[in-house]
Amino acid sequence: MKYAVGVDLGGTSIKIGLVSQDGKIIKKVSVATEAHGGPRKVVCNIKKGIGELLTGITRQVEGIGIGCPGVVNPKIGTVENPPNFHGWKRVNIGRPLSMEFEKVVFVENDANAAAIGELIFGLGKKYNSFVMVTLGTGVGGGVVLNRKLYYGDFGAAGEIGHITIDYKGPKCNCGSYGCLEAYAGNNYLQKRVWEKLKQNRGSLLNKLIDKNYDLLTPYKIKEAADKGDKFALSVIEDLGVKLGAAFASVSNLIDVSTFIIGGGVAGFGKPLFSSIRKTLSARVLTSLRPRAKVLSAQLKNEAGIKGASALVFHGY
Amino acid sequence: MKYAVGVDLGGTSIKIGLVSQDGKIIKKVSVATEAHGGPRKVVCNIKKGIGELLTGITRQVEGIGIGCPGVVNPKIGTVENPPNFHGWKRVNIGRPLSMEFEKVVFVENDANAAAIGELIFGLGKKYNSFVMVTLGTGVGGGVVLNRKLYYGDFGAAGEIGHITIDYKGPKCNCGSYGCLEAYAGNNYLQKRVWEKLKQNRGSLLNKLIDKNYDLLTPYKIKEAADKGDKFALSVIEDLGVKLGAAFASVSNLIDVSTFIIGGGVAGFGKPLFSSIRKTLSARVLTSLRPRAKVLSAQLKNEAGIKGASALVFHGY
Repeated sequence: MKYAVGVDLGGTSIKIGLVSQDGKIIKKVSVATEAHGGPRKVVCNIKKGIGELLTGITRQVEGIGIGCPGVVNPKIGTVENPPNFHGWKRVNIGRPLSMEFEKVVFVENDANAAAIGELIFGLGKKYNSFVMVTLGTGVGGGVVLNRKLYYGDFGAAGEIGHITIDYKGPKCNCGSYGCLEAYAGNNYLQKRVWEKLKQNRGSLLNKLIDKNYDLLTPYKIKEAADKGDKFALSVIEDLGVKLGAAFASVSNLIDVSTFIIGGGVAGFGKPLFSSIRKTLSARVLTSLRPRAKVLSAQLKNEAGIKGASALVFHGY
Repeated sequence: MKYAVGVDLGGTSIKIGLVSQDGKIIKKVSVATEAHGGPRKVVCNIKKGIGELLTGITRQVEGIGIGCPGVVNPKIGTVENPPNFHGWKRVNIGRPLSMEFEKVVFVENDANAAAIGELIFGLGKKYNSFVMVTLGTGVGGGVVLNRKLYYGDFGAAGEIGHITIDYKGPKCNCGSYGCLEAYAGNNYLQKRVWEKLKQNRGSLLNKLIDKNYDLLTPYKIKEAADKGDKFALSVIEDLGVKLGAAFASVSNLIDVSTFIIGGGVAGFGKPLFSSIRKTLSARVLTSLRPRAKVLSAQLKNEAGIKGASALVFHGY
């Protein structure tokens, strides 16, 4: 049995696990990121965490995989401008770790790591090509073609969150308008639902959040929907329409028909998935329709650690 | 020097040429398609045309390439439901031709053939990866990655005309809404301009077409624009905005930054290209912006014949 270290680098905490080739987490640790301390501090914390993880471990470790936000150059191991990591321009986190631990290190964008995680440990057992979509604060994506991550000319491929669904739509943080993320990213979703709640006084959601914007999370929307609240259900259904429209564009362009959805917002469950499926099926070209599949990611808890460690097994 | 036969199968006529490996047309013939006569009649006409072309030719011919409308399965040489070829369900045009002439035969969708034509004889000398976009009655597309046509899981990739730019937009013939083609396909463009002309009585276009819908062609729009007609220019600029928005989605998803535009509507020239470039640059992710390129196809006349013959040289 082979083993790898998976590092899930988040804005608040760094989760690190020792993962076996069959996808089991043998041991895990969590350390504070201290992103405000700058790149050196963060790299130091990753080292500390890995050191702690490997203390007393005698198994042979094949390598270290790191999933992190921002624009990643996997060839040289750099991370560029990760959101919530102020002061990082371009930082090489691969090299100091490979020097410290004398292991091969793979650095990937977190959405790509999630895609590789599904490929190696999850639904990839059944599907050779798929598009991974992570629904969280933003909308991330990774394209897997014939069991390999598709990078494009310069490694920037897979930005499904920045597919336009309405070219005159609301402004997106990327500078464009009407990107999928500008509807489906949790930040945007929260704002839009907040606005609409004013016209839906009767919605159970109003009671659940009691005028507190911060409480307006996907979990609360789901709670209201589960209790049959029509407004909450319409929010989820509408989100599915937007995702389905973007997926149809993707499918028509690259003829990949399997979409795997992960991330917190995917927790909306059945009403979300059935709305996406219905929309995708109505919009994709006729010849692609019979193959269209929208699936829930198989890796749920620790998808971050597992995806990061999968980079090592995928690399071999 | 190697030679190939290129067949450009159109709804009205079949154009056939003998093309050298350096892209020169040595000889060409044109025969009527007689699509109303059904598949056997059409295949018979192709045979007749190739026979005529090769009469008296002593050079060694490597193979036959055919570019045609509709859904093509290049592996088995079938064409499915080509528009304007009524009564064709799925017809194998590859096999009867390879049997008749004892040559290898390549059958491709016309947009893919145009892409391969540019790859082998045109701008492909400079660009290894690009998206070919053909602007005609419909909007066709072919994706070239690392000097190979990208087919996707089942050969249906490249349908850039069916990328949505406004999910609540006008109905497209494919059944979806707000596809690029529903704005930029010539049929749709013509209808939209006709509607708008009523509110633009002063436009020179009104004089040029004298209330005759059939005269409202891209050539007339260009003629008016060349003479400084503001309405005609706004039509072209608006078309560029729509193409640019779709191209940004493509670029963000597959990280290919070079777009090559061919087909009749590309004849709008400079005002179209500068509007596409401006829109693409404003909408694509920052990291991709410096590489974004929108180019006019290098193959102009006989792009159909040359693209079809290029299938043979690309296949080798």
